[in-house]
Amino acid sequence: MRHHDLVVIGAGSGNAVVDDSFADLDVAVVEERWFGGTCLNSGCIPSKMLAYTARVARTVREAGRYDVDAELGAVHWRQMRDRVFGRLDAERDSGRRGRAQEDSVTVYEGRARFVGPRSLRIEGERGAVDISAGQIVVAVGGRPLVPGPVAESGLPYETSDTVMRIDAPPRRLAILGGGYIAAELAEVFAGTGSHVTVVEKEERLLGPQDETVAERFTELVRSRYDLRLGRELTAVDGEPGALRLTLDDGTTVEADMLLVAVGRVPNSDRLNLEAAGVATHDDGRVVVDRYQRTTAEGVFALGDVCSPVPLKHVANREAKVVAHNLRHPDDLIAADHDLVPAAVFTEPQIASVGATEQDCRDRGLDYVVGMAGYGDVAYGWAMEDTTGFCKVLAEPGSGRLIGAHLMGAEASTLIQPLLLAATLGIDATTLAESPYWIHPALTEVVENALLDLDL
Amino acid sequence: MRHHDLVVIGAGSGNAVVDDSFADLDVAVVEERWFGGTCLNSGCIPSKMLAYTARVARTVREAGRYDVDAELGAVHWRQMRDRVFGRLDAERDSGRRGRAQEDSVTVYEGRARFVGPRSLRIEGERGAVDISAGQIVVAVGGRPLVPGPVAESGLPYETSDTVMRIDAPPRRLAILGGGYIAAELAEVFAGTGSHVTVVEKEERLLGPQDETVAERFTELVRSRYDLRLGRELTAVDGEPGALRLTLDDGTTVEADMLLVAVGRVPNSDRLNLEAAGVATHDDGRVVVDRYQRTTAEGVFALGDVCSPVPLKHVANREAKVVAHNLRHPDDLIAADHDLVPAAVFTEPQIASVGATEQDCRDRGLDYVVGMAGYGDVAYGWAMEDTTGFCKVLAEPGSGRLIGAHLMGAEASTLIQPLLLAATLGIDATTLAESPYWIHPALTEVVENALLDLDL
Repeated sequence: MRHHDLVVIGAGSGNAVVDDSFADLDVAVVEERWFGGTCLNSGCIPSKMLAYTARVARTVREAGRYDVDAELGAVHWRQMRDRVFGRLDAERDSGRRGRAQEDSVTVYEGRARFVGPRSLRIEGERGAVDISAGQIVVAVGGRPLVPGPVAESGLPYETSDTVMRIDAPPRRLAILGGGYIAAELAEVFAGTGSHVTVVEKEERLLGPQDETVAERFTELVRSRYDLRLGRELTAVDGEPGALRLTLDDGTTVEADMLLVAVGRVPNSDRLNLEAAGVATHDDGRVVVDRYQRTTAEGVFALGDVCSPVPLKHVANREAKVVAHNLRHPDDLIAADHDLVPAAVFTEPQIASVGATEQDCRDRGLDYVVGMAGYGDVAYGWAMEDTTGFCKVLAEPGSGRLIGAHLMGAEASTLIQPLLLAATLGIDATTLAESPYWIHPALTEVVENALLDLDL
Repeated sequence: MRHHDLVVIGAGSGNAVVDDSFADLDVAVVEERWFGGTCLNSGCIPSKMLAYTARVARTVREAGRYDVDAELGAVHWRQMRDRVFGRLDAERDSGRRGRAQEDSVTVYEGRARFVGPRSLRIEGERGAVDISAGQIVVAVGGRPLVPGPVAESGLPYETSDTVMRIDAPPRRLAILGGGYIAAELAEVFAGTGSHVTVVEKEERLLGPQDETVAERFTELVRSRYDLRLGRELTAVDGEPGALRLTLDDGTTVEADMLLVAVGRVPNSDRLNLEAAGVATHDDGRVVVDRYQRTTAEGVFALGDVCSPVPLKHVANREAKVVAHNLRHPDDLIAADHDLVPAAVFTEPQIASVGATEQDCRDRGLDYVVGMAGYGDVAYGWAMEDTTGFCKVLAEPGSGRLIGAHLMGAEASTLIQPLLLAATLGIDATTLAESPYWIHPALTEVVENALLDLDL
């Protein structure tokens, strides 16, 4: 059995662990599918690239609001797909090639399972190989959850893993789920001309967002999509290309294609973790301490397989923590999961950090709300914006920022100063009044929300 | 002679001085033209509103880059103009009405001149009136500078005061000047289909910007406009609607319309300041100390008539300082002119704060440069961006931010965390590593520029 000093299972964020400082070790990277992981191949990046095209199409459609005559012609899905994945697949391949060429790194292409503490069997196209390791990093990510009625129907369905690479957009797309992946992909396909129906069990899309965001976003897209809210799927029938979804109130949705986007599950169940002594939570996430150590000696985990916040910027940070801790067992550093921001790249964009207002209420916090509309600042006038807003939550007295939520153009950029202030403990008044805020930049909406706080 | 406790001359930023806390005083506001001043009526706001339309038109034109077929039809100048100024003129009028209705405020419509210390003559349509005041605020702003060859030609020309309100865009527009006003208006008129020629005496547009910004912006727009760089205007002849500009190398520019945008001068020369004992600098700016006090007892000044940085967000801050200092002579606060950011709302946008690289060199500072391209981050891939960048200048060792310069989409928003950090003394490493940076948001270009610094 070949022994490596370090084995990283999963070449998504896991691959980032192995930097030059590991060159003196015998390292192995195991990947069963895609170098670059979910983010590069089927997640954050391709979805944003496709969403940007949808944004361009929407700008063309809405040009009349700015007294510009414009006619939208075809959105060339296949060209767009090939543009996007031509670039990303090349990145993926160069990532794999780069690793394979390194003298100190062995790349195994196949699926790893534990056969004992720090011992793995890797099954690939060329058969199985057993290896052992001094240290192991589990970074196998997650996968889309497929609910019973879909799996049991035997009929075809897409997930975020597959839908961005299809040959042609469907005429009628049914999306199961109303979270951020569903919302982003709804915009992508509506942008290419698909008729989109969204089936969501809650009464609002983007339920975990701040209630004002979820409510206003749901209202905003009500005219774009056929929303079936508060409904659960009970059955899928019909045939490939002509599906019929039956909902729990007996209504039906006809669609050419079904996209399942009801959530993701960690891939921990594929690793035979019992053999390694690696414990998992009830939801399948690998148990880690604040230093990203699992319950098994010498085994770390990072990213979606273990993280409470399955987002790429969190996985990146965890990868840095693991890289450090692998080499410095006596000087461990902790991963910070406080104040993790998130953005949804819909039209309009959404960005958030910290507590929502419903969190504040549920936790009995003493808080005040500051609100400002894009339509109340000059750049919002330029954009003819009537729906965008910034909402900040702060502790009265101290002005400590508890949460910030934006919906509107550039939200994912506008949130950064709020996030910086919250992270470094800069209070709302200092944030509003110390730096200049460029007039008439869109940032004035953040300044105004801060000034609106009754501290 | 009527006496007021406080007279504010100029209802642009000056108007913001008079808040509710002055309700116990007898206040007068004098305005000869437009409530809301340059910003609302002929400056920041209408130019951004028109520029946004140009941006929409450019997006339509360039939709093919994203595999979207789109055809640009007419850009309806007159509708756009009426949409913009319909809104802004209503704001202006409601500002005037609001003031006129206040019991404690007298509005004088006319031009004020000093006739003695804290004594003014106001000449309006209904004749002249003399008033005196306990305190006076001079906030009369500035106006476009018109160079000799233009003024002497007797031929018509436009300035930023007039050009946004014309009835139809010219077929051929000649712009004299290559600063930010020229650059923004060039984009506006090119967006509506005008053929634009820019005559600038320096070899680069936007010369005061960081050299990388000025250089790259100039290259970028070279294909959009007919650039006549390093050239001075020597004569204007021809006739209205068919002008011929002669440049100092003997070449000529034919144009239907001439826009003069070579800079602005303070309106201090219209006030007979000698009578008041108010001194001015050689460039015409009113001399003020850090508390915005002029050289005459009881006379303050703010905004473009005195400010070293004639930008609206600076005038706003000076207005707050003056409002405080008028009421608290024994507890004066100072206006802060350090780290004033600025943005240019061209396509692409430009934003800057602090020192440029040429400043650093000229001042012999010890500095390092961090650069990152939009094309190196995932959201830049989505935008198919190949030209945007973020450049940061920092002090080696301490990581103190000395300057930041961006050119690209959302630049005026992206700069805010850099500006916040520079203002509050947050070093580059803390800024890069403490807060999360959302993946894949455009903010990653700022993070990367910070990480690129060799501190």
